[in-house]
Amino acid sequence: MSLLMDNQFGELPVDKSVDTKFFLESVAYLPPFFDCLGSKVFVPIKSDISGNITKIRSVYDKDPAKYATLQQIVESEKEAYGTEWPKVGATLALMWLKRGLRFIQILLQSLADGEKDENNPNLIRVNITKAYDQALKKYHGWLVQKIFKAALFAAPYKSDFIKALSKGQEVREEDCMASVRQFLINYTATVDAIYEMYTTLNAELDYSV
Amino acid sequence: MSLLMDNQFGELPVDKSVDTKFFLESVAYLPPFFDCLGSKVFVPIKSDISGNITKIRSVYDKDPAKYATLQQIVESEKEAYGTEWPKVGATLALMWLKRGLRFIQILLQSLADGEKDENNPNLIRVNITKAYDQALKKYHGWLVQKIFKAALFAAPYKSDFIKALSKGQEVREEDCMASVRQFLINYTATVDAIYEMYTTLNAELDYSV
Ligand SMILES: CCCCCCCCCCCCC/C=C/[C@@H](O)[C@H](CO[C@@H]1O[C@H](CO)[C@H](O)[C@H](OS(=O)(=O)O)[C@H]1O)NC(=O)CCCCCCCCCCC
Ligand SMILES: CCCCCCCCCCCCC/C=C/[C@@H](O)[C@H](CO[C@@H]1O[C@H](CO)[C@H](O)[C@H](OS(=O)(=O)O)[C@H]1O)NC(=O)CCCCCCCCCCC
Repeated sequence: MSLLMDNQFGELPVDKSVDTKFFLESVAYLPPFFDCLGSKVFVPIKSDISGNITKIRSVYDKDPAKYATLQQIVESEKEAYGTEWPKVGATLALMWLKRGLRFIQILLQSLADGEKDENNPNLIRVNITKAYDQALKKYHGWLVQKIFKAALFAAPYKSDFIKALSKGQEVREEDCMASVRQFLINYTATVDAIYEMYTTLNAELDYSV
Repeated sequence: MSLLMDNQFGELPVDKSVDTKFFLESVAYLPPFFDCLGSKVFVPIKSDISGNITKIRSVYDKDPAKYATLQQIVESEKEAYGTEWPKVGATLALMWLKRGLRFIQILLQSLADGEKDENNPNLIRVNITKAYDQALKKYHGWLVQKIFKAALFAAPYKSDFIKALSKGQEVREEDCMASVRQFLINYTATVDAIYEMYTTLNAELDYSV
């Protein structure tokens, strides 16, 4: 599980503010996660997520002190943009990024919880579908949903996915899952905090693409 | 038809060599062609083609005199790379780019020839499918073919496509098609010349993605 374990997310402070610099550093290691799915068809997803990260970073770089936390970015943009907000700037990029992060979280949690298709224990389609249904489906129109269903066939076997997460090393599923559980602690807390912020600041939109 | 007419391809010399600089300039106007299809699902295709162009340009920029024609690029790379070639460098980028160019060519030619689904004269699915079958299908595995079939539903109506090609102006279909025919003359000759070169230099591969 070195891919994720090498880059653990930090613990949140009590006010649940997310440090932008640390967040950007940790999250930069996630696009390669989609390489673990093993097929070129996931390249567009990786690009979309990388684009979100680049957008947030470019806002942060303009004034690192002013934008020290993700909350400060979203609040500043709420002030700065009029009615365009929240479908704009880093607010929009983080709105979508958090959905990708949630997708990864639910997928890993489902695997760590041992959820599986008893008839095909080495497939992860049930876990991917669960993550998709909860994190993304409602933001996708029927066409993208249809493309998702097709792309699902490109999902790797569980054993190959675990090997890829472990950077090519053959590790026991149980060892890998122990690392996943460890990784998920701070990661889930961070994703939850971002979702809460979007609710609190009324920054969430539910249009679909 | 201003989108294409503003950037006509040049006439080929008798030896059918393709001037790299002019080629790169003309082809740079084609990625926006995929915006004319009107849906976000075509973004990955646009990026793939833009990536090919960037790759070829970066090789050209290293030594514009040495790489004055596309033929010179492919021949130099054949020399420079050993057994890796032709699945490498600008040779690989142009191998895929020419398929996207062929796709556009066949689609436009089919529309200009008036080929249509008599039951749905305002749909262009038959034209897109023809272009896909001839230019790309054999280089795509069953999964990407399946995704193509889904994406086909995002194809625009012919009237909207023509409007987009004409940069938003309402032009008569006949006027637009006259411009398309004009554009296709040098464009088709250029694409043909690139295909011939790949055959002559034994640079073509038929693996599928
Ligand atoms: C030859 C035939 C070719 C046919 C081509 C068909 C290609 C089909 C492409 C399918 C779509 C790829 C995924 C990308 C979807 C994106 O459209 C959405 C919205 O994307 C957001 O849009 C905003 C504007 O509305 C801003 O531009 C955001 O950008 S901004 O930074 O500028 O603000 C941007 O992220 N992102 C998403 O839905 C996020 C996706 C996360 C995915 C998570 C994992 C799913 C895993 C599935 C595993 C099975
Ligand atoms: C949430 C759910 C999300 C699910 C996500 C699913 C996403 C599915 C994505 C589908 C694929 C998008 C199209 C891209 C396909 C590409 O894989 C191929 C090969 O691409 C080539 O690969 C090479 C290595 O083998 C080099 O990297 C080349 O790069 S290099 O420059 O580095 O050498 C690169 O172009 N290009 C292609 O097939 C070319 C495609 C041209 C398309 C022409 C028009 C078709 C129009 C269709 C209209 C209906």
